[in-house]
Amino acid sequence: MTELPTIPNTRVRRLPERGSYDRELAYPLLDAAQIAHVGFVVDAQPYVIPMLFVRIDDCIFLHGSVGSRMLQHLATGAPCCVTVTHLDGLVLARSHFNHSANYRSVVVFGHSTLISDLQQKERILLKLVDALVPGRSLDGRAANRKELAATALLEVQIEHLSVKTRSGGPKDLDDDMNLPVWAGVVPLQSAAGAPIAASDLNPDIRLPSYLQSGVYAA
Amino acid sequence: MTELPTIPNTRVRRLPERGSYDRELAYPLLDAAQIAHVGFVVDAQPYVIPMLFVRIDDCIFLHGSVGSRMLQHLATGAPCCVTVTHLDGLVLARSHFNHSANYRSVVVFGHSTLISDLQQKERILLKLVDALVPGRSLDGRAANRKELAATALLEVQIEHLSVKTRSGGPKDLDDDMNLPVWAGVVPLQSAAGAPIAASDLNPDIRLPSYLQSGVYAA
Repeated sequence: MTELPTIPNTRVRRLPERGSYDRELAYPLLDAAQIAHVGFVVDAQPYVIPMLFVRIDDCIFLHGSVGSRMLQHLATGAPCCVTVTHLDGLVLARSHFNHSANYRSVVVFGHSTLISDLQQKERILLKLVDALVPGRSLDGRAANRKELAATALLEVQIEHLSVKTRSGGPKDLDDDMNLPVWAGVVPLQSAAGAPIAASDLNPDIRLPSYLQSGVYAA
Repeated sequence: MTELPTIPNTRVRRLPERGSYDRELAYPLLDAAQIAHVGFVVDAQPYVIPMLFVRIDDCIFLHGSVGSRMLQHLATGAPCCVTVTHLDGLVLARSHFNHSANYRSVVVFGHSTLISDLQQKERILLKLVDALVPGRSLDGRAANRKELAATALLEVQIEHLSVKTRSGGPKDLDDDMNLPVWAGVVPLQSAAGAPIAASDLNPDIRLPSYLQSGVYAA
């Protein structure tokens, strides 16, 4: 299991050198993101909604209120598209035409179904908490029966996906290389700041270790 | 012109305190973003693709290769959804159930049409360059006739939109306030690094002033 079959609707036709269909490439990109943009269709109208998510094996899990119309729609097995994008830089070429962006994106296609098994729900909701901050699920109060019942949990099987990336500097035409214009890349990244304790937090409670290292370090 | 009419499919039903329909609120959020996630439908399948964009007045402009199947589809006046999300923080509550994210998002609904007038195309492509880096359009070589012909430019009228935001700390149940659990927010932001000159840049060309200040400063 590495490369997915390419089907017409996920083949990257433009600029094929940027395309890939490799789950091994895609999954780390999915796992490094905190939100996905989830697309679905109601009455021929497309919707794109940002959502927290977690990937486990070959599935993406979404959740929300059982009262959400969106989740009610997705619970019917609707086709959906889950897209994750890391924007890595702005590419400034000598010509306007060759301006671009550096990015890594994954577009996932699948159908969503509702998870109703309580134990499975509990297990996956813990993973959703860890997707927000690794290690957090061992801290805090897990969902009780009432909260579990109020939460709709959706599973999207990753049926097809495509990875598209661009990296590196600008690519200009030979004729443009002598233009007196600055060319290069402005790097971009998502950065975490020092954690801010809730104003009503008991001052005896110290910052947990899982917030003291890595991307969360002050 | 401030608040849009709310129509059923853009009304934010869940958590109405997070909803708004105000263009004055939405447009700065659109303008502060470099990419949007664009949703459209082909044969009942939703697609969500990250794209550069620029907003001018009540329109969003997208562009790409005239050979792109996606742009060819959008050029037919297809309904589309353009979503911009700023992820501002991870909200860690004492209960898993109340974990959340701070964010500001705009969901735009409209139909896309092709712009074929050459002068209008030239003018809007300059704005697209400035949307990437303000001030950049005055630098570099503008698109020539061949490049203009190779570029498909799409206009999406902002027919309806909804703004949804969350800010501030965690909201826990009274019963959970005494749990010995750290609660608060991990702030997140998109950060620009120091510009990196192209490896083949003439060393006599200095970093332009529009890259020396604000978010681009080293």
